[in-house]
Amino acid sequence: MDDYSTILIKNARILGKNENIPQSLLIKNDKIEDIGSNISQYNVDKIIDAKNKILMPGLINTHTHISMTLFRGLADDMSLNTWLNDYIWPTESYLNGEYCYIGALLGIVELIKSGTTTFNDMYFYMEDIANAVDDSGIRACLSYGMIDFADSQKREDQIKKNLELFKTCNNTVNDRIKVFLGPHAPYTASKELLMKTRQLADKLNTKIHIHISETKKEVDDIINQTGLRPFEYLDSIGFLGPDVIAAHAVWLNDEEIKIIKKHNVKISHNPCSNMKLASGISPVYKMINENICVSIGTDGASSNNNLDLIEEMKTASLLQKVNTLNPKALNACKTIEMATINGAYTLGLENEIGSIEIGKKADIILIDTENVNMVPDSNYLESNIVYAANGSNVDTTICNGKILMENKKLLTLDESYIYKQARAAIEELKNLKD
Amino acid sequence: MDDYSTILIKNARILGKNENIPQSLLIKNDKIEDIGSNISQYNVDKIIDAKNKILMPGLINTHTHISMTLFRGLADDMSLNTWLNDYIWPTESYLNGEYCYIGALLGIVELIKSGTTTFNDMYFYMEDIANAVDDSGIRACLSYGMIDFADSQKREDQIKKNLELFKTCNNTVNDRIKVFLGPHAPYTASKELLMKTRQLADKLNTKIHIHISETKKEVDDIINQTGLRPFEYLDSIGFLGPDVIAAHAVWLNDEEIKIIKKHNVKISHNPCSNMKLASGISPVYKMINENICVSIGTDGASSNNNLDLIEEMKTASLLQKVNTLNPKALNACKTIEMATINGAYTLGLENEIGSIEIGKKADIILIDTENVNMVPDSNYLESNIVYAANGSNVDTTICNGKILMENKKLLTLDESYIYKQARAAIEELKNLKD
Repeated sequence: MDDYSTILIKNARILGKNENIPQSLLIKNDKIEDIGSNISQYNVDKIIDAKNKILMPGLINTHTHISMTLFRGLADDMSLNTWLNDYIWPTESYLNGEYCYIGALLGIVELIKSGTTTFNDMYFYMEDIANAVDDSGIRACLSYGMIDFADSQKREDQIKKNLELFKTCNNTVNDRIKVFLGPHAPYTASKELLMKTRQLADKLNTKIHIHISETKKEVDDIINQTGLRPFEYLDSIGFLGPDVIAAHAVWLNDEEIKIIKKHNVKISHNPCSNMKLASGISPVYKMINENICVSIGTDGASSNNNLDLIEEMKTASLLQKVNTLNPKALNACKTIEMATINGAYTLGLENEIGSIEIGKKADIILIDTENVNMVPDSNYLESNIVYAANGSNVDTTICNGKILMENKKLLTLDESYIYKQARAAIEELKNLKD
Repeated sequence: MDDYSTILIKNARILGKNENIPQSLLIKNDKIEDIGSNISQYNVDKIIDAKNKILMPGLINTHTHISMTLFRGLADDMSLNTWLNDYIWPTESYLNGEYCYIGALLGIVELIKSGTTTFNDMYFYMEDIANAVDDSGIRACLSYGMIDFADSQKREDQIKKNLELFKTCNNTVNDRIKVFLGPHAPYTASKELLMKTRQLADKLNTKIHIHISETKKEVDDIINQTGLRPFEYLDSIGFLGPDVIAAHAVWLNDEEIKIIKKHNVKISHNPCSNMKLASGISPVYKMINENICVSIGTDGASSNNNLDLIEEMKTASLLQKVNTLNPKALNACKTIEMATINGAYTLGLENEIGSIEIGKKADIILIDTENVNMVPDSNYLESNIVYAANGSNVDTTICNGKILMENKKLLTLDESYIYKQARAAIEELKNLKD
């Protein structure tokens, strides 16, 4: 990858900013330096001609397990229990840092190619995933997935691992990595682990990434154990706050929506995963109407089975429309906000990323309108992006002022080599498991 | 387009046929001549190396309004009434044969690029759409959308138009075009028109393409008018039969599912359109379990907003899973059947297309596994195709033994020219409307 200290993108249709009049955007180092029609082309290191391209913020995927991209297509069309017990967990038990690194690289290739510049990940061997983030040039928030099943020894070990990750990686690689705390879920993390996490989040001033209320079974189990529904239980132990990122949030009653609103909890909606695993439909439109901050995640590729956030936007919008029988629910603009600025708010990066503004980080994608599914392009561009496009329409991806993909060619990663390594890794894992 | 009388596709992983062992497939003229590992490469006109590619049947889209591709992004996120009354119908009133031809070409570019080789279309100016089918090399079933609103003069005119289409186009362009009868819907076509259509279908031995039970309002209106639900009403007037292709079929009770089964009516399921217009969720899994033939359609691009049948497969499967809370519902293999052989049965072409068999027409696509969303590819290929892929993964499209796209390059149509024409057409139409 060539390092340019200034990049001029010219002739771009900037989404939401007078988009029918081509403009220029100047990047200086990692930031957007200027936007307008009279920016000089002289003395810039690199010019990108964005004729026939839409310029918009890089997408923000707020819930992933990036290394699980290795497990794409490994096990589908089965119950959550069979999927976890017979396939995912037995295979995961043979994971190591090298496998997680290659899985992360594979996932990051997919993210960059489909226009995502920031992802929020929870898994194991997170230092190796940080290395993949470093090597690729993408931006990420990383949490170690802490599971203690009420075992105090295990609890200490898990907290230690997340804290080590924080110490080693937080604010590293040009500030592209943030480290969060990752108690897996209220059914896998004990009350003690959850409360310790809350203390540490306050002390370290970082965020908490957790799965909550993904399935009806989980809700029923927590009611059986505590007498309370998951968000009520988490409220009762003082766990909730504006720094909590709750993935899924499918099974909510109105009281829980009030609790989420009261604490300004951030929700990561994962429609494809919730549909594919038959978990249920999250009341996203209701939450949006309550001004709750809802963003979008793909979850891992083993339950999706891709990491295409443009596709995920369409699914999010369509699912709310049909579920509320209201075709106006989650319109295209609102859905794009969910995948951009809401994602930034969710990760506490709203002053840095999520919109195209002078002074913000240059996390930018270009979408090619010379693809058949984007023609005509004189109507509502937002509609074309949400309802007609998919990740393959992304032409150029820039993160932190560096070009990661230009004209669909990756500049920081060797695709073919990664495919080869990933194929070998999953074969080895399957052999180890059998 | 070069015309080859023999084409050998070698090194292909043929879906569902020992797919991990590369094989060859020989095309002679319009048909599949041989499949195996020992087919001679000598004396063939053209060799396609399908290394790293999956070979499968061309997809069959059983409900489209192809010329409406011009209206992509024109009007979204609004009620069906506003959409129809304020945007679609006023714009359609300025359509002519030239606009419909260019709209059809735009749609056909999208179909070919995303792996569809046959589409079932209902609209106006169908002779012009037949010309686009002829020029492009794709396969189509065409119906004139007959609407009489109980006006006998209009009825005669509409029937005449559909009959003229039948006379002019049925079995033309190397048998790639079939003409069906297209009474629009039970709420826009009178009982007299429906009964006349039934007579004509029997006489001409052709099929009937109709919208049925798309919205709850439609069902309520028909109950108000007739005292019966739509399928009950259509049964009562003797309209139904195995030659009826019912698009949508969203609002069905168990009695209607029995009626559909009894008459072997074919259902075209259009999940994206039904979700986007907030029409509702069709009980597809229930119908599949009753052995009713359900295929997949995209509907027009103005209510989808693309024509990507691979994306539509994913939506179909995921929507049934979440709606039944059963992750095993509509598994990947079953979903692929819906988009291939079920489509062929629906159109009465099951002896010609819809599967890879010696003697069938060579309607074939190749999907490239060297794309990130298809890696790894050693697990379940069907899962990768339904859950991870989209239309952009299609590399090569062959219809009736002719190569329409090779290595993502269209051979029969000039994409850029069509985009230019389509853009001009929609601008003219918008100006005429305003």
